[in-house]
Amino acid sequence: MNTQDTIAALATPAGSGAIAVIRLSGKQAIAIADQHFRSVSNKKLSEQKSHTIHLGHIVDDNKTYDETLVSLFKAPNSYTGENVVEVSCHGSPYIQQELLQLFLRNGCRMANAGEFTLRAFLNGKLDLSQAEAVADLIASENEASHQIAMQQMRGGFSSEIKKLREELLNFASLIELELDFAEEDVEFADRGAFNELLERIQLVLKRLIDSFAVGNVIKNGIPVALVGEPNVGKSTLLNTLLNEERAIVSSIAGTTRDTIEDEISIAGIGFRFIDTAGIRDTKDEVETIGIRKTFEKIEQSQVVVYIIDSLRVKKDRANVESIKIELRKLRNKFPQKPLVIIANKKDQLAQEEQLFILDEISDIITQKDKTKILLISAKTNSGVEELKDILHDFVNTGALRNNETIVTNSRHYDSLLKALEEIDKVKDGMAHGIPSDLLAIDIRQAIHHFGEITGQITSDDLLGNIFANFCIGK
Amino acid sequence: MNTQDTIAALATPAGSGAIAVIRLSGKQAIAIADQHFRSVSNKKLSEQKSHTIHLGHIVDDNKTYDETLVSLFKAPNSYTGENVVEVSCHGSPYIQQELLQLFLRNGCRMANAGEFTLRAFLNGKLDLSQAEAVADLIASENEASHQIAMQQMRGGFSSEIKKLREELLNFASLIELELDFAEEDVEFADRGAFNELLERIQLVLKRLIDSFAVGNVIKNGIPVALVGEPNVGKSTLLNTLLNEERAIVSSIAGTTRDTIEDEISIAGIGFRFIDTAGIRDTKDEVETIGIRKTFEKIEQSQVVVYIIDSLRVKKDRANVESIKIELRKLRNKFPQKPLVIIANKKDQLAQEEQLFILDEISDIITQKDKTKILLISAKTNSGVEELKDILHDFVNTGALRNNETIVTNSRHYDSLLKALEEIDKVKDGMAHGIPSDLLAIDIRQAIHHFGEITGQITSDDLLGNIFANFCIGK
Repeated sequence: MNTQDTIAALATPAGSGAIAVIRLSGKQAIAIADQHFRSVSNKKLSEQKSHTIHLGHIVDDNKTYDETLVSLFKAPNSYTGENVVEVSCHGSPYIQQELLQLFLRNGCRMANAGEFTLRAFLNGKLDLSQAEAVADLIASENEASHQIAMQQMRGGFSSEIKKLREELLNFASLIELELDFAEEDVEFADRGAFNELLERIQLVLKRLIDSFAVGNVIKNGIPVALVGEPNVGKSTLLNTLLNEERAIVSSIAGTTRDTIEDEISIAGIGFRFIDTAGIRDTKDEVETIGIRKTFEKIEQSQVVVYIIDSLRVKKDRANVESIKIELRKLRNKFPQKPLVIIANKKDQLAQEEQLFILDEISDIITQKDKTKILLISAKTNSGVEELKDILHDFVNTGALRNNETIVTNSRHYDSLLKALEEIDKVKDGMAHGIPSDLLAIDIRQAIHHFGEITGQITSDDLLGNIFANFCIGK
Repeated sequence: MNTQDTIAALATPAGSGAIAVIRLSGKQAIAIADQHFRSVSNKKLSEQKSHTIHLGHIVDDNKTYDETLVSLFKAPNSYTGENVVEVSCHGSPYIQQELLQLFLRNGCRMANAGEFTLRAFLNGKLDLSQAEAVADLIASENEASHQIAMQQMRGGFSSEIKKLREELLNFASLIELELDFAEEDVEFADRGAFNELLERIQLVLKRLIDSFAVGNVIKNGIPVALVGEPNVGKSTLLNTLLNEERAIVSSIAGTTRDTIEDEISIAGIGFRFIDTAGIRDTKDEVETIGIRKTFEKIEQSQVVVYIIDSLRVKKDRANVESIKIELRKLRNKFPQKPLVIIANKKDQLAQEEQLFILDEISDIITQKDKTKILLISAKTNSGVEELKDILHDFVNTGALRNNETIVTNSRHYDSLLKALEEIDKVKDGMAHGIPSDLLAIDIRQAIHHFGEITGQITSDDLLGNIFANFCIGK
């Protein structure tokens, strides 16, 4: 990747709008823009101050392409740290393409995915975890994931890592200094203070590593398995929750054979609902495959929602028993998994029928905090808000509320695990009095893993992987 | 429509991109932005210069929404002529919605379609025909329509109209002055000079009115009817021209019953290809409806492309005759319509077979400049470029090349027609010596119609109609 080139790309979403923005970055950005921009005040962009906006026309030979506003950012005071020009043009796809091609014909090359942010990283405007947060921020679809990405982008996470890394570096230098004076048996590094630091680092690393369980599901949405006999109203409930007709609602029992995933936001947290084929005992081969899939989906879920058709339960005693057998099976197979049992079609039940169902099902509850029972009507929306509350309560959002640093990136998670491993080794080694030179190697390894997170240690391959996930123009 | 409100809207296309722009306009735009923008330099936007860009965060209470660049435009130096703030945020749909809602909760209202441009018009930044050109510019999909819209937006058309209107106003005032001195029988207005002016106006109006025939088709694409027996390769040709699989290509004769429209750009001009069901004689009722539709489509087209399957012609003498009968029928029904006869599947013909077909078909040509014959192979792309050249030559692009003002808007066309009618009346009246007071009325009417075009004369209904066609955010 040549970082000497001046790059150009469309920065706004593709399609038609009122305006679109084409972004140029690199040493020649201003000079190239000046070749084709005629400001109404007849002044050159190169003679203007940074962070100013200029009205004029983009021209080539005798052709006028568009009337535009041009924003000027002079190195190093720009997103990339290079000269940046943003051309705000009329938002027709035709004009966007024509202008972009004009710049590509005249000294720019097309930017790669994420190349603007890569340059920001290479020029020290962002560290690597901040750069990664930019992509997370753009991908965020709800308040929680947005909040975590914002915190990471603003450097909350990296500053914590950097601080630990620096303290560790200090001790590492002192211990390495001792090696130079090995004959004299001096101790520059205070072993007591060092042990304290290691314990502090262990605590922080463990907290960050633990936060990944929350962070990862928040980033990707909390998986919720929707389980129940065929035709009990799962699809209708899903539609009510999603507020649109995504799943095919049909009255033929067993129609939902493929799993449908969709995400809704409840109080700022994304929940990914996974419709399953239920776990009804059956001889039908297709259904059996469906049931196996259902168990897989439950395994992967954070919460299980089990739906009962109230009408069938009230009509048929045998049906109640078979449902209770299924629920016990579910509870035995997944004893710790939060479970919400929903009796649907409440709107068609009398008061005493509702009480009967609640009473019967309560039988199977062993842990009150892990199991909830709820009568709802997906059709009339009754009980749906309570369901949302229950789901939200099942999710551990303490860290979110307390504004703690949460790790969402599996690359960071891996590096944190490796760093902790090394720190554990160092601490053990100290306790067993291993020589300073071996100690120093493990400390260096821990420092290395910290550096991987913030990008002080990096490779072209790693950067390529990270920025390939960005959109072009960012 | 309250023009005192501060309005807000997303200005960039909907969807996900690197950045998105939210635009605020109105008296309170800067004050509202200042409530929620914390610049990194800790300065208020209201204290900054116009046309400057500021880095900072959008916040509400303790929540940070995004890191943004804010562009500042102070009245009257903005697109709308009002205070304008453009917030350039990270391009996730979630952030776009959150920021827009934040501003809507705090003093802005959602902008109506085209309301920014409407305000620009009401504040005298653009005249009405220039404002209309903004929408045309965003809708333009090829060089020709883009070029005309640019010219109109830059005022080429309005300045011509305004100049005529002013000259006419001068004479109107002089003639009305004469009325005040009616008893004294004076002539302030030089009747000779006035007659000259009227003739000049007539010429200009006629030229502009004539240009609408070109302008209208350029704006909407030049309609080309694709005609021929079923299964001769019309869909394949269409696909070759469109370079993608839009029409369903099938080998069952008569499959293309619905007309498919699509536009390609040839040397900067948009051509709208209309696939038809052909004009083969048939007893099948559905086909007969298809044939009637084909004739309708030919009627509406500027050019007809008639396709022959070369293989059928070379095999069957009777087939050649029936095609020639059809072609003659076409020529008789539409004698002036430019016609391109294409013998397709050239790749499967020997040299002498090619010559035979050219020779046979040449029979039916009466006017050489209106009829062209071409051997092509849609499959191998051979002859397709020649077809494009022929189509382009059939279109009168003289006005485009000479950079003349071209009318593309039917509202302008109507007003020009009405203005010409009034001018004709004035001229006739002068020739027949009608009294000055009657003359003055007709002149005022002509001036009124000129004013309709540029918006000096307007109504809320008219403005509502015009700007309803804009996108929100423009």
